[in-house]
Amino acid sequence: MEAPVAILAGGGALPLALAHTLRQQGRPVEILALRGFADRDTRRAAGAVRDLLDARGILDVLHAWRPGAICLAGYVHRPGPLALLGAYSAFRNRELISRLAAAGDDGLLRGVVNLLEDQGFTVAGVHALAPGLLAPAGVLGEVSPTAAAAVDIGFALLGSLAPYDVGQAVVVAGTRVCAVEGPEGTDAMIARVRKLWGSGRLPRSDQAPVLVKTAKTGQDLRIDMPVIGPRTVRCAAAAGFAGIAVGAGQTMIIDHAATVAEANRRRMFLVGVSPAG
Amino acid sequence: MEAPVAILAGGGALPLALAHTLRQQGRPVEILALRGFADRDTRRAAGAVRDLLDARGILDVLHAWRPGAICLAGYVHRPGPLALLGAYSAFRNRELISRLAAAGDDGLLRGVVNLLEDQGFTVAGVHALAPGLLAPAGVLGEVSPTAAAAVDIGFALLGSLAPYDVGQAVVVAGTRVCAVEGPEGTDAMIARVRKLWGSGRLPRSDQAPVLVKTAKTGQDLRIDMPVIGPRTVRCAAAAGFAGIAVGAGQTMIIDHAATVAEANRRRMFLVGVSPAG
Repeated sequence: MEAPVAILAGGGALPLALAHTLRQQGRPVEILALRGFADRDTRRAAGAVRDLLDARGILDVLHAWRPGAICLAGYVHRPGPLALLGAYSAFRNRELISRLAAAGDDGLLRGVVNLLEDQGFTVAGVHALAPGLLAPAGVLGEVSPTAAAAVDIGFALLGSLAPYDVGQAVVVAGTRVCAVEGPEGTDAMIARVRKLWGSGRLPRSDQAPVLVKTAKTGQDLRIDMPVIGPRTVRCAAAAGFAGIAVGAGQTMIIDHAATVAEANRRRMFLVGVSPAG
Repeated sequence: MEAPVAILAGGGALPLALAHTLRQQGRPVEILALRGFADRDTRRAAGAVRDLLDARGILDVLHAWRPGAICLAGYVHRPGPLALLGAYSAFRNRELISRLAAAGDDGLLRGVVNLLEDQGFTVAGVHALAPGLLAPAGVLGEVSPTAAAAVDIGFALLGSLAPYDVGQAVVVAGTRVCAVEGPEGTDAMIARVRKLWGSGRLPRSDQAPVLVKTAKTGQDLRIDMPVIGPRTVRCAAAAGFAGIAVGAGQTMIIDHAATVAEANRRRMFLVGVSPAG
């Protein structure tokens, strides 16, 4: 029997979407849900639930499953200082914990990948296991993209931000950068723009904001694949956005059909843009 | 008698601080307060109050004053669509208004400078008229700067953002970028970090955030000089920041003595960093 894919599942809808896709492909799947991050549905579908910092427990489960590949899916955040303290005794060594404590989310996940590879596991990205979940290039809905300048500025800006441990999404209206995503995440950033707009400090009508989201240049896509889904579209629509542009092949779309339908219903454009050659 | 400096006064404490400094130097000063932006104290000290879009009214006042130089000081924002509509009849032409409507704050202020220069006025920056208000290089308070890596990352990131119409301040904790300033301004950005910190999603203790603020590389300092003051220090202290680093000669400090005293009281470092190279 084929070795399963073990999904190390954080928050959001991506872990179950990935599990669904893999099973449709006929691949056996095991889900290890990370307590405090994985959604309830994910935890229910999981064969095991462990704390992010319970390295020993996580490794025991994974070794028992003998997965052909491990895939990190869904968001996790760097744990707080108390959680780290609790892990001192269980985890490999103080130095590693200290480094994780100092790192951003990226650094944390890179540490997890290194740890798993040290243990002989293969770590694969969602994009490699389920390329069908990636945003394709082109116009994805019924609404033709507008605001080409804002979209271009958004991708250029994200390119400039690539060397920094910062978010992977920006909002641009006209030539104006309305927001750069920080640790708050895309939905909270969109809510911020909504508030700014309400206060009259942002352009309106033909200068409606657009969300631009894509993976960092040179990003290890196994670690942090940007994701959009129907909820992203609803948030952006509520904030008066004209549309969403994502990096083709560099962004996952959770439930493609529902996402496109939502965009059509809200008369927002949705476009996948290939990275500039 | 020497021709006065005309201060075109937006919001914040900078216009009065500038007026005070200039008068100490023995220069006559006239203040034109921009309604809806200038603080109450500024409006009281002003010889005239006009709407930002009342170009004819503003030019009439300025021509009557025959200023040796005009200085834009204090913040203004791009006016909303209704204000722009109202200005169609009064202002020069529809094309200019449309361009201002599409521009960010930078574009708006550049348009104002161009308009004033077209009319034969000299537009001077606060930095040129009152260099004593600029942040000097070096440690400005009692607390020795820490978080050198975060400060370096902050300045590098602001350098990367220079080509974009986006804020001039960032918050970095460790190697993590916690926030990039958008149109919401520095205080609101700091409040955002405070909230993130409260939610446990940011590093703590030795990784306390630092505010880094400086003018964009190549920025016309007559248009948008970044400013800090005692209030900035109070906001940052309330959010648990370790300190503030500003670009020496590229940032104004409103009330230097009070700002340094506030930083000392809060045990925060305050440092002016000379541009690299």
